[in-house]
Amino acid sequence: KRSYNVTLLPGDGIGPEVVAVAKDVLSLAGALEGVEFRFQEKLMGGAAVDAYGVPLPEETLAAAQASDAVLLGAIGGYKWDNNEKHLKPETGLLQIRAGLGVFANLRPAAVLPQLVDASTLKKEVAEGVDIMVVRELTGGIYFGQPRGFGKNDKGEDTGFNTEVYSASEIDRITRVAFEVARKRRGKLCSVDKANVLEASMLWRKRVTSLASEFPDIELSHMYVDNAAMQLIRNPKQFDTIVTNNIFGDILSDEASMLTGSIGMLPSASVGESGPGLFEPIHGSAPDIAGQDKANPLATILSAAMLLRYGLGEENAAKRVEAAVTETLNNGFRTGDIYSPGTTLVGCKRMGEEVLKTV
Amino acid sequence: KRSYNVTLLPGDGIGPEVVAVAKDVLSLAGALEGVEFRFQEKLMGGAAVDAYGVPLPEETLAAAQASDAVLLGAIGGYKWDNNEKHLKPETGLLQIRAGLGVFANLRPAAVLPQLVDASTLKKEVAEGVDIMVVRELTGGIYFGQPRGFGKNDKGEDTGFNTEVYSASEIDRITRVAFEVARKRRGKLCSVDKANVLEASMLWRKRVTSLASEFPDIELSHMYVDNAAMQLIRNPKQFDTIVTNNIFGDILSDEASMLTGSIGMLPSASVGESGPGLFEPIHGSAPDIAGQDKANPLATILSAAMLLRYGLGEENAAKRVEAAVTETLNNGFRTGDIYSPGTTLVGCKRMGEEVLKTV
Ligand SMILES: CC(C)[C@H](C(=O)O)[C@@H](O)C(=O)O
Ligand SMILES: CC(C)[C@H](C(=O)O)[C@@H](O)C(=O)O
Repeated sequence: KRSYNVTLLPGDGIGPEVVAVAKDVLSLAGALEGVEFRFQEKLMGGAAVDAYGVPLPEETLAAAQASDAVLLGAIGGYKWDNNEKHLKPETGLLQIRAGLGVFANLRPAAVLPQLVDASTLKKEVAEGVDIMVVRELTGGIYFGQPRGFGKNDKGEDTGFNTEVYSASEIDRITRVAFEVARKRRGKLCSVDKANVLEASMLWRKRVTSLASEFPDIELSHMYVDNAAMQLIRNPKQFDTIVTNNIFGDILSDEASMLTGSIGMLPSASVGESGPGLFEPIHGSAPDIAGQDKANPLATILSAAMLLRYGLGEENAAKRVEAAVTETLNNGFRTGDIYSPGTTLVGCKRMGEEVLKTV
Repeated sequence: KRSYNVTLLPGDGIGPEVVAVAKDVLSLAGALEGVEFRFQEKLMGGAAVDAYGVPLPEETLAAAQASDAVLLGAIGGYKWDNNEKHLKPETGLLQIRAGLGVFANLRPAAVLPQLVDASTLKKEVAEGVDIMVVRELTGGIYFGQPRGFGKNDKGEDTGFNTEVYSASEIDRITRVAFEVARKRRGKLCSVDKANVLEASMLWRKRVTSLASEFPDIELSHMYVDNAAMQLIRNPKQFDTIVTNNIFGDILSDEASMLTGSIGMLPSASVGESGPGLFEPIHGSAPDIAGQDKANPLATILSAAMLLRYGLGEENAAKRVEAAVTETLNNGFRTGDIYSPGTTLVGCKRMGEEVLKTV
């Protein structure tokens, strides 16, 4: 029997509710495929700030690093919004990404046939959209040095950050993206701002030079401002997108909202080796926390990505994804994706319905 | 008789066609309001690279600086795409923005009732959208030092840029944005990434501290990734947006595409004093250049912004805007905004129709 250690990081807000549901789904799908999980739960984000005075306790990082995969709920909330940087929940998230070395963030944004009406886009534009954003996650302006506060020559306050990429950082994310595109529809669009930024000029040069290793993939380049437009004008033109950390933050969220159902969207963050980090793209939704209203499907689908990309358990992953599809086909909807004629359910009940079909 | 010097920078691609039309409209609207223009045309962008070996000749910048306002067509094209940075048309654009000190870029994105079907958004989402993005234009990562190419400690190539803002740079753009919001619906949303970037933390702090000078304006803050989502989810929640140079580049283009008719959208770039720079937000569209297919309305509306924000000629500005509305009501459309039941016209004819109604 194959057996894995999975670290659960429920986090803040609705995090605990959705992780609890996804854990049950993981267990059942695993059991049916001869896979056993040993779970351990650790604090992170605002919950860890409150309990330990830091958003990522050493113990949490150590446990995550020692495990086979990490499932995260969500972090943050009004309560900690005005904290200093080292006490922000978000800082814990950046620390665990760096600590696990998960440089490749895969963010699918697909419009499901059952939910096409949830999109604010016209049906004919939304239908069939299926984009994967591959975002560089441990470099660029999020981590670049120097950064901080200073004074300029007039004695005024300044705030500054550094956008920096090295050749190898670009190469490794680009290779991941080409591989992802190969398993999809064979098209890769690299997004940058090479008409202005030197960091982007190097990015474009390296991406272009790697293309010869992937002759079967159709590579294109697009400026980030144009990409932000094209995602709205004609999202179906995109298959796989690769871009830097900050552009990926913006464009993956834009792409996700094209679906109109961000409560459905998972993500996977993986490195060269070591455990991957899997989390829904939605936030901690403090407004509805603890009310059994959250949509657990994004976390369940993140668990499916954990099975596929984190553990190589393709059969179990497919089982989970099929169960989500069937549950939607059976008409069950949480409030965020509800439409007349479907059955409104809470977080727990949605989990039970998925379990029935796993 | 009031008299102004206007520098025309036709630029590349469709630039010359649309500027020629806008020039005629400016002349006529001015004449009817007792205003006289002296025009001078200068080279910029790819055209200047070809003729002088630089994208912004000194003579062009000097003429622009000495004039009362500058009207730009569009710059760039495939031909110069792989040029080195100092020979890129885009570099000329950045140079003229810096040279004129036009730190405030105003980019309206409004869905016109006549063109609501052009949007890829559902009608009920698109209808009534009316957003003004106020983008900081002469600072941030576009101009921050240090920038360039280097080696890291492993001897690898790197590319780097600096995102930096000083207190006074933030304050002046924020004041412009508050004033703009005051003339609109009184709502200002400041967009940043203050949960990660120090430059954004200072941004948020300064914007917040200026709010007391504008007690009549409702100020909110939003992270850039969320803004990219909210623009699609519910664009009507926005009135005026203020943000930094790179986020403004991305979000103003995203907002413009919500309208589905970027051939209609003007922009104004203004400084503390001195001439402003007015240009359509669309590019040089080399594919249709010289074929009399371009939509001149964005440039005509940029001329209206020139009259209003550049010269304070409000009556002439209103005259031009009313003429554009009437021409649309009369059913004339260029190819980019054509729909069955309207009259397809070329660039010149569209200009003639606008002139008739000025
Ligand atoms: C919370 C924040 C630091 C984070 C990011 O910017 O990476 C989030 O927006 C995301 O995309 O996962
Ligand atoms: C052409 C480019 C340098 C420019 C920018 O990024 O500012 C353009 O995209 C714009 O928005 O005016």
